[in-house]
Amino acid sequence: MADWQIVAGSVTAPKGFRAAGITAGLKPSGAPDLALIVSDSEAIAAGVFTTSQVRAACVDYCQDLLESKTSARAILCNAGQANACTGEQGMQDAIASANSAAKALGLPEQSVLIASTGVIGQRIKIDALQSGIPQLVSGLSTEGGDRAAHAIVTTDLVTKSIALETQIGDRPVRIGGIAKGSGMIHPNMATMLAFVTCDAAVSPQLWQDMLRRATAKSFNQITVDGDTSTNDCLLALANGESRTPAITTAGPEADKLEAMLTEVCIHLAKSIARDGEGATCLIEIAVTGAMSDRAAGQIARAVAGSSLVKSAVFGRDPNWGRIAGAAGRAGTPFEQSELSISLGDFTLMQAGTPLPFDRAAASSYLKQQSERSSKAMSKLLLTSTEQGNDLVATDTQTPLRRQQIAAEALAHPVLITIGVGSGPGQGTAWGCDLSYDYVKINAEYTT
Amino acid sequence: MADWQIVAGSVTAPKGFRAAGITAGLKPSGAPDLALIVSDSEAIAAGVFTTSQVRAACVDYCQDLLESKTSARAILCNAGQANACTGEQGMQDAIASANSAAKALGLPEQSVLIASTGVIGQRIKIDALQSGIPQLVSGLSTEGGDRAAHAIVTTDLVTKSIALETQIGDRPVRIGGIAKGSGMIHPNMATMLAFVTCDAAVSPQLWQDMLRRATAKSFNQITVDGDTSTNDCLLALANGESRTPAITTAGPEADKLEAMLTEVCIHLAKSIARDGEGATCLIEIAVTGAMSDRAAGQIARAVAGSSLVKSAVFGRDPNWGRIAGAAGRAGTPFEQSELSISLGDFTLMQAGTPLPFDRAAASSYLKQQSERSSKAMSKLLLTSTEQGNDLVATDTQTPLRRQQIAAEALAHPVLITIGVGSGPGQGTAWGCDLSYDYVKINAEYTT
Repeated sequence: MADWQIVAGSVTAPKGFRAAGITAGLKPSGAPDLALIVSDSEAIAAGVFTTSQVRAACVDYCQDLLESKTSARAILCNAGQANACTGEQGMQDAIASANSAAKALGLPEQSVLIASTGVIGQRIKIDALQSGIPQLVSGLSTEGGDRAAHAIVTTDLVTKSIALETQIGDRPVRIGGIAKGSGMIHPNMATMLAFVTCDAAVSPQLWQDMLRRATAKSFNQITVDGDTSTNDCLLALANGESRTPAITTAGPEADKLEAMLTEVCIHLAKSIARDGEGATCLIEIAVTGAMSDRAAGQIARAVAGSSLVKSAVFGRDPNWGRIAGAAGRAGTPFEQSELSISLGDFTLMQAGTPLPFDRAAASSYLKQQSERSSKAMSKLLLTSTEQGNDLVATDTQTPLRRQQIAAEALAHPVLITIGVGSGPGQGTAWGCDLSYDYVKINAEYTT
Repeated sequence: MADWQIVAGSVTAPKGFRAAGITAGLKPSGAPDLALIVSDSEAIAAGVFTTSQVRAACVDYCQDLLESKTSARAILCNAGQANACTGEQGMQDAIASANSAAKALGLPEQSVLIASTGVIGQRIKIDALQSGIPQLVSGLSTEGGDRAAHAIVTTDLVTKSIALETQIGDRPVRIGGIAKGSGMIHPNMATMLAFVTCDAAVSPQLWQDMLRRATAKSFNQITVDGDTSTNDCLLALANGESRTPAITTAGPEADKLEAMLTEVCIHLAKSIARDGEGATCLIEIAVTGAMSDRAAGQIARAVAGSSLVKSAVFGRDPNWGRIAGAAGRAGTPFEQSELSISLGDFTLMQAGTPLPFDRAAASSYLKQQSERSSKAMSKLLLTSTEQGNDLVATDTQTPLRRQQIAAEALAHPVLITIGVGSGPGQGTAWGCDLSYDYVKINAEYTT
């Protein structure tokens, strides 16, 4: 099934992509804050955007652009200012940012997609951004993916990246991705962003459809605190530089590419959930037996989003009642006499009736999964309290080893398995526990 | 508009109702745990129940009963065991409880509605309950409303009750209510319950319709942690003992009664939100200018339920960005250029653009509202750490004064006003802040 392998390089792993990340002075902390991803040739471009009624200028810009155009050459992303709730001036700043990058790259206008993350209500520091662009462009490199991953974070504790390789038509095809997001740790510090690159040749409609379906199984199935941001956006470029036959219709090649794209998105989504504010573990909810995949996914998300379930996991409490309660209120019908709940290997409820189980052992399971995952996470932490140091300079691990550790950090979720009947529907969601630190991070802001 | 006055006595304020609350030994703490409300004559009965797929036996029992019957004589409620996820035996226990009360009251079977609250997965201690019924029945009194209010709480810090009086056809008509609920403070300790009594004469369909609409504006507009319980239920009895002309069709009398019913439900709902686990204040979100009342209510609820907004209020942070973000993701369309947000008297955003405001003063407003409300709450706290002491015995206030203090505790919400356009729709929701104590209460359970 998993017909691929992890490779190093994130968004620059696929052929024909270069990236860079620099400190342009947008963040007060002096941390990297400006990233650029460039395809050497015109790339098929697809996007998925926040459904919020309150949207940042960059979201409107990209949505409008991709309605009239199915390709792009680059993605420019700034951290520090979200450029949301900034009115007409915000849109002018967004356009100026995109045009500055296009000009420096020698590309026509409307070749560059843009994204912003940071404080809502603050305009991009446009002068600093424009001054930084020459350095950014001259720093572009086929090894620059990890620098870009670092330059898009805000208060994330770790960077999020992955690259996978498979064979299509006897040639290697790669998909790489980077993401950021950890809830809204700082005041107004919003945004989940993800950028995916691919060197397969694929038709625009197929690429957009694949991305939408992959999003439904990944980013749309994670929850940290239920708050959708003004800036959420996922952009994906496919440039065909692998020189594999173009994928233009459904079939085994398309399925293979979509499976790998989905895996990249799931890895990035899980990375975001694991780095949720104050989180001590990743929680995975797998639902089976529902009437449809959609219904199963909905139940999984409701459980993943339950503050009571999240608090119980933080307290290492195998509290099946809260899981049953959250499943029941998910808004999708099932017979409670068919409800079963397991936590790891412990069956807590079957046929709607609680079973006796070893509470101490089940509690230990919760503790152990958190410890295993945290051990790997500790090796990935950005290296200063302000997260302002350069990741690459202080990192003694190889990029590939780092990817493997990142996979390890996600390999020990608290697994909650829920059966709701004998239907064909199944779905998975991911979340994290709710700790004192969540409240601390979000409340302790001196006005 | 508010054509009524507060009177003492909660559910026994309306004519022809008696109530009692005793310690039957269902709770380990020795606190009151069994309540009974009885109408002297057959009363029109209406109910609103949890929409969860995982329901307690008592919910199924009452729903089935009220499908075949539009009247009842009594409501029996036990605290300590939720009787949810207890299978067929749970239903047998529920029937036995109802029948025992009916027998002791000399009533036919199916005259008594039942409700349970407490630990999910635990059956009612049926022997203790049945042994307690004679004492419960002999304790019935027209002053027993407050005792009943005390016997239905679980980990609530205060009881919730109200009674209002108005004139219909030149005669006084009263509606009284009691409620319990504070989130799921204890492990699996679920449930919002509310019981309303009324001495007006009203037709069954009208009473059910009124109750449904009142619920939509009250209990369905509060949120503590987003978790709907297995036992949520609101039961309302109207016995006609005021001897006012029967209200059988829409008209001024029906409107007056419904307005008072809605006010009773809103008071009880706000009381539950204010007593939300770990809460330090009540938050009221008022939305105007939406396309419909429904859309406005949805936006209000989304903001009230946002963990980020709740954390910010706890941190006394006038964080308009989080409010805008939550409003935007509520799932109802509006133009962000028409969004306005006020906090108390401070306008934070207008026409989609943030305004300069005095952050320190706005933060002080948050602090002050919490302090005012907490001062009143402190006078209402149940009087031992286990909340096991008898409320009435230790209470030096008169029941009416107590009602006035309870109203005072709700009179200083943190008020967030949101405009989303020029539509006719308006709606209000209530919630509470998210504090360290929420996590503490829900995580610190030794398995």
